[in-house]
Amino acid sequence: MASLEKCVSPNALRAYLAEFISTFIFVFAAVGASISTRKMMPDAPLEPASLTAIAIASAFGMVVAVYIASNVSGGHVNPAVTFGMVVGGHINITMSIFYWISQILGSVMACFLLKITTVSQHIPTSAIPNDMTGVGAAIIEGVMTFALVYTVYAASAESKRGGSLGGGVGFLAIGLIVGANVLASGPFTGGSMNPAYSFGSALVGGSFKNHAAYWVGPFIGAGAAATLYDNVVCPNQEPEAVLEDIVSI
Amino acid sequence: MASLEKCVSPNALRAYLAEFISTFIFVFAAVGASISTRKMMPDAPLEPASLTAIAIASAFGMVVAVYIASNVSGGHVNPAVTFGMVVGGHINITMSIFYWISQILGSVMACFLLKITTVSQHIPTSAIPNDMTGVGAAIIEGVMTFALVYTVYAASAESKRGGSLGGGVGFLAIGLIVGANVLASGPFTGGSMNPAYSFGSALVGGSFKNHAAYWVGPFIGAGAAATLYDNVVCPNQEPEAVLEDIVSI
Amino acid sequence: MASLEKCVSPNALRAYLAEFISTFIFVFAAVGASISTRKMMPDAPLEPASLTAIAIASAFGMVVAVYIASNVSGGHVNPAVTFGMVVGGHINITMSIFYWISQILGSVMACFLLKITTVSQHIPTSAIPNDMTGVGAAIIEGVMTFALVYTVYAASAESKRGGSLGGGVGFLAIGLIVGANVLASGPFTGGSMNPAYSFGSALVGGSFKNHAAYWVGPFIGAGAAATLYDNVVCPNQEPEAVLEDIVSI
Amino acid sequence: MASLEKCVSPNALRAYLAEFISTFIFVFAAVGASISTRKMMPDAPLEPASLTAIAIASAFGMVVAVYIASNVSGGHVNPAVTFGMVVGGHINITMSIFYWISQILGSVMACFLLKITTVSQHIPTSAIPNDMTGVGAAIIEGVMTFALVYTVYAASAESKRGGSLGGGVGFLAIGLIVGANVLASGPFTGGSMNPAYSFGSALVGGSFKNHAAYWVGPFIGAGAAATLYDNVVCPNQEPEAVLEDIVSI
Repeated sequence: MASLEKCVSPNALRAYLAEFISTFIFVFAAVGASISTRKMMPDAPLEPASLTAIAIASAFGMVVAVYIASNVSGGHVNPAVTFGMVVGGHINITMSIFYWISQILGSVMACFLLKITTVSQHIPTSAIPNDMTGVGAAIIEGVMTFALVYTVYAASAESKRGGSLGGGVGFLAIGLIVGANVLASGPFTGGSMNPAYSFGSALVGGSFKNHAAYWVGPFIGAGAAATLYDNVVCPNQEPEAVLEDIVSI
Repeated sequence: MASLEKCVSPNALRAYLAEFISTFIFVFAAVGASISTRKMMPDAPLEPASLTAIAIASAFGMVVAVYIASNVSGGHVNPAVTFGMVVGGHINITMSIFYWISQILGSVMACFLLKITTVSQHIPTSAIPNDMTGVGAAIIEGVMTFALVYTVYAASAESKRGGSLGGGVGFLAIGLIVGANVLASGPFTGGSMNPAYSFGSALVGGSFKNHAAYWVGPFIGAGAAATLYDNVVCPNQEPEAVLEDIVSI
Repeated sequence: MASLEKCVSPNALRAYLAEFISTFIFVFAAVGASISTRKMMPDAPLEPASLTAIAIASAFGMVVAVYIASNVSGGHVNPAVTFGMVVGGHINITMSIFYWISQILGSVMACFLLKITTVSQHIPTSAIPNDMTGVGAAIIEGVMTFALVYTVYAASAESKRGGSLGGGVGFLAIGLIVGANVLASGPFTGGSMNPAYSFGSALVGGSFKNHAAYWVGPFIGAGAAATLYDNVVCPNQEPEAVLEDIVSI
Repeated sequence: MASLEKCVSPNALRAYLAEFISTFIFVFAAVGASISTRKMMPDAPLEPASLTAIAIASAFGMVVAVYIASNVSGGHVNPAVTFGMVVGGHINITMSIFYWISQILGSVMACFLLKITTVSQHIPTSAIPNDMTGVGAAIIEGVMTFALVYTVYAASAESKRGGSLGGGVGFLAIGLIVGANVLASGPFTGGSMNPAYSFGSALVGGSFKNHAAYWVGPFIGAGAAATLYDNVVCPNQEPEAVLEDIVSI
């Protein structure tokens, strides 16, 4: 299995490490901001100023997480993005499993570290209000992940057109769509778009209620964005050209 | 009619799809943030923290919407911007009608999806306080759309000067002027600058009160910006060079 | 007087128009956000959420104002910046007077338009709390304008190094330092750094109390930044190379 | 000692001045925003809107501070970043001491100026709530500084790949990770990641309680990031190429 050998090459191992670190940094910022606002307003429900704080931390954290990993692993930082890359044929399925594990480990570690160091704080989990259904939440998460993965594809395309001079500025757009969607969906689904983020906070926070919605929705949205972008919107991309040195042929 | 044939070419259809998706993503973020802040503060009037949340969602959403469509459709995401491009001769009128339809459909779909998935939430519409007139609102919206379309023209000019290496960074400026103007006008006009956005929320929210102000003001502002930029501020642009492959001559 | 002829050349007139439009857009956003937060919280003093709204509007508005004028007038948008360019020899004094007039007219127009369209709203002026002196305010404004003009010089230097491929990304830094300093100084001086902004709001708002502080401080700060940057920090710049086609030799 | 001579060369002195100015500007914005929010809310504890204001001022201030110094000193603006550069061999230890002194002086000056000009305001110091330990705070600060210095290394790598056309856009990522981490850690450690910032506010504010945590944590985090990035994640960098003209071999 040439594929498996490639999956444990030095470049591939570096990519997994980069995904672990980037997901750790993103989840630390996003979950940290959630804990932080609850520490300051322990008796109040989520209000607009707290949501803005969490959205900005998520946006800025994602901008950085994508930026620092972009030349090593492609900067997925999210199992749904990796799945979108599998669907588009930009990464093989075996390698994607290593990506998923790295992302989930990074998220769990970040939540665990926050729980220990902040002492008595509760880790908040992605949650749905009583009057919404899991299906509704999955649809919202799916639509938002569609927007995210579509943006990732557009950033890859721009990076190729620009001859990869420093990788372009698509990492900014990727982070900002996360921030915009957190603001749009905060009191409804928590604004995850990222199964690793939801899994880490669910595991350390101790609640897997409605957890499936945070996998099913994002994976469907990611697959749809990948299919649409490569086949309809911008059909002239050669898959090998994206992240070519760590991706199988 | 060569023009109409061009309007249904594969590249043109891709451009309409890109406008549909980008307008959907922008309106989802902007209207979503409005619903989201009202869900958190159901009994309070709009306050600064909520306006900031909506403005950031609008700015970040517009940055992304323009970025992801820029190499496919030019990234108008707004009928007033498309009208500004018609006035400047950068897109023909037949094609612009398809752009408008795509943008309006994207907006309506986003509002409709938000209404369904968030269950009982009301879709807020662009509105004017009692002590203001529709004319005053149209003037504010017109001035702000002038700023927006002027920025779009400056971004096109920069993109050309830079040899389109990845398209420049003008998409950032286009999104940020939307955010700045939402903050400047929120309690007065709602800060639309975008007839598709206002139409979608009016249709799904069920109120067309003062709706004309959100078309007349932006279209006049857009036309003025286009005329001024191309003829006075930067008169050395060849119209054919902008978006040349999908624009008729 | 060759100098005066140059000052009324088509390129120079375009530059004045660009300064007028950019200052109008910036002041509309910044003053608009001030009016907007007061409309929402009429009985409360300035609080952090309102200051954040004003700071973001100022930052985003300035990013855009600089961006859209950069290739036409250099994007000063501020008499103190123009004065800093005079001190560094990058623009002649006659032309700078036209710049100042354009900037002040843009600011007055923006404040006047806001007053008319928002009907009964008061235009807030740059103000100092009772326990501070005008000298203290001038020092704060001077230090902050030093930071701003130093950033403008750094952006010019970067633009030259990069061969002006689209003008670089310095316009982002110029806008962001305005936002940071508004947050740092809001309740103390109002965070102006810009005599045109302060003059426009003072004229339309009807109060020139402590107005001198908003000219003296910024001009001293701007002159210090210009002198330090060109002579000590980065002494290898040829003045002719900056904005060469509209600047006298 | 050739090394010491190099440390007082004109280029080196310019670098120290640039670090002084950049740290001054950053600390002025970050501490200024803290004072500013307390002035507005004198009787309330830190709440989300104030934390957001401080985080945005810190992020925007750091973006600018790095940007304006990047071509002169590398834009460290932080003793922990300089230490990370020592560990990676990108700057020699003698020169780093001058960097540290410049950064600390800049921070002290900014805090001192704010104290004088704002009259009766207290300078807030980095602080830890009662239920947390100094070790916990050091861990949080260390992890966040790891993220910061890792980002600095990624930005250097990008700048090299892009052939330093204007230095890339890494300065944005460096500022944004500071903002994200302030939001994540505000009520727990104050979100410093910067010993110069903590020292300046401690000296002028008059409290060195738990001060060691703000040196030990960031230095360990910075050293770990430097080691990991250069040896594991991106091992193909030649140290001489970074800031080559002011660094000894």
